[in-house]
Amino acid sequence: MFDKICIIGVGLIGGSIAIAAREKQVCRHITGYGRPKSEENLLIAQQLDIIDDYSTDLATAVQDADCVLICIPVRAFEPLLRALQPLWSATTLYSDTGSTKGSVVDALCQVFGSVPENFVLAHPIAGAEQSGVAAARQDLYTNKRVIFTPVQETRPEALQRMVAFWEALGACSAQMSVQHHDAVLAATSHLPHVLAYSLVDLLGKKDAQEEIFKYAAGGFKDFTRIASSDPTMWLDICMANKKEILPLIQQLQGELQVIADMMEQSEDQQLFDVFTRAKQARQRFLDQFQ
Amino acid sequence: MFDKICIIGVGLIGGSIAIAAREKQVCRHITGYGRPKSEENLLIAQQLDIIDDYSTDLATAVQDADCVLICIPVRAFEPLLRALQPLWSATTLYSDTGSTKGSVVDALCQVFGSVPENFVLAHPIAGAEQSGVAAARQDLYTNKRVIFTPVQETRPEALQRMVAFWEALGACSAQMSVQHHDAVLAATSHLPHVLAYSLVDLLGKKDAQEEIFKYAAGGFKDFTRIASSDPTMWLDICMANKKEILPLIQQLQGELQVIADMMEQSEDQQLFDVFTRAKQARQRFLDQFQ
Repeated sequence: MFDKICIIGVGLIGGSIAIAAREKQVCRHITGYGRPKSEENLLIAQQLDIIDDYSTDLATAVQDADCVLICIPVRAFEPLLRALQPLWSATTLYSDTGSTKGSVVDALCQVFGSVPENFVLAHPIAGAEQSGVAAARQDLYTNKRVIFTPVQETRPEALQRMVAFWEALGACSAQMSVQHHDAVLAATSHLPHVLAYSLVDLLGKKDAQEEIFKYAAGGFKDFTRIASSDPTMWLDICMANKKEILPLIQQLQGELQVIADMMEQSEDQQLFDVFTRAKQARQRFLDQFQ
Repeated sequence: MFDKICIIGVGLIGGSIAIAAREKQVCRHITGYGRPKSEENLLIAQQLDIIDDYSTDLATAVQDADCVLICIPVRAFEPLLRALQPLWSATTLYSDTGSTKGSVVDALCQVFGSVPENFVLAHPIAGAEQSGVAAARQDLYTNKRVIFTPVQETRPEALQRMVAFWEALGACSAQMSVQHHDAVLAATSHLPHVLAYSLVDLLGKKDAQEEIFKYAAGGFKDFTRIASSDPTMWLDICMANKKEILPLIQQLQGELQVIADMMEQSEDQQLFDVFTRAKQARQRFLDQFQ
């Protein structure tokens, strides 16, 4: 499918693509790129046989690549794209895995004036609270969704090739607009992460925190799993998609106030209705999830 | 250890005690009690061989029992205790599994004037989002903590017998005051449940809810698991422990506002610090959890 893939940013996401791409034999050669300060990480990726080789020089890394995949935190896109621009090739396919798409479009427009026709915006809905290439796994994308957010400029053949690539890795593809993607992900992913971080930080600051954590059980463990996610990545996502996240935080504060008022006023039936509606809504989610 | 245990309320919690008590051979006979409208549930428990027999008549159910375990939603305690009072036996051991202890003390004081010396307040920190006797399992309490909250009146031998009972079922025992229990559980269990319910209800009410749930992933699934918990039980807990839960909701709203302000003002370092602190705090929890 590809001769040489260059993966820019070989962490959990980029590393898992590399492992699956080799396993599924959809490319001949995989080169990793990272900044000099992350050379140790690239060396590990090579030693684990996740990538064939690597370079901390961008020109060397992307040379002769027919596919360049950008798998870095979303706010690192603009400087990376600036460095990539003079090396840009019309015959190479470019794509990304950014968690927010509006910010990637903005970065592309800043650097190129518009979204290049051979850049395919994509976001695999998969992850783990671990980060780094050592956490990469072959099955991270198996049966997971990859959302493509093509813009007007996107060449249909470029989109088709990236869809075929991801489907070859075992993922299912979906398409939606950039704005819709960012709104949906703010609700299902970004807001829950903010909530989990804020709850754990609140409890962790308490004098009784040791006691509190000692008597927390399985429900707390699952509820807070995402609070173990990479702070750098989530700082970037929150800042990049604040337009969608901030109104949701406000709505949730409002919902919490409604619940608090019901408790205060002993409005049993109303609170029972909220909990019942939520339980039913989660069942609808589970029915879709499978 | 006991001749006849009477389990009042044979659901997930009471049913799992029954299964483990038989498995560990800590009693000769187990009788279930429930109200006439829950007779079908008792019949299932008997058919599944979880209990030996049952009665919907309280006097019949507790007759000759040397241990009575009350496993019902916390706000059902007072009417149950009123019915139990004329049947009270000084030689029987009474205990409970209520999720909030202050409310159980209040109910006991309302009915008996003070906590009877043969009533041992206990709370096994275990559960599942499923409810009902069909979800009961033999290992629900294995290596789980049971918190005992003895009060001044509690007879030490009564406490010791209940500790020995729970340890025989495979649980670990811990002791703390009633007030401390309710404060700790509000933080680690009650607040997270309120948050999960409020998030899922917020999203479930949105026009785009179907789309939102369609693209939610594993992180969302874990984060919202507790929103599938039994609404009746959680209505009771919220109302019974509102004194501890309401200030925590307010604190969390404040924490969310701090995070929202950091996003609004693009205070990168501050937000990074919050996320990092939370990740570290969760690691402290995990280190204790095991």
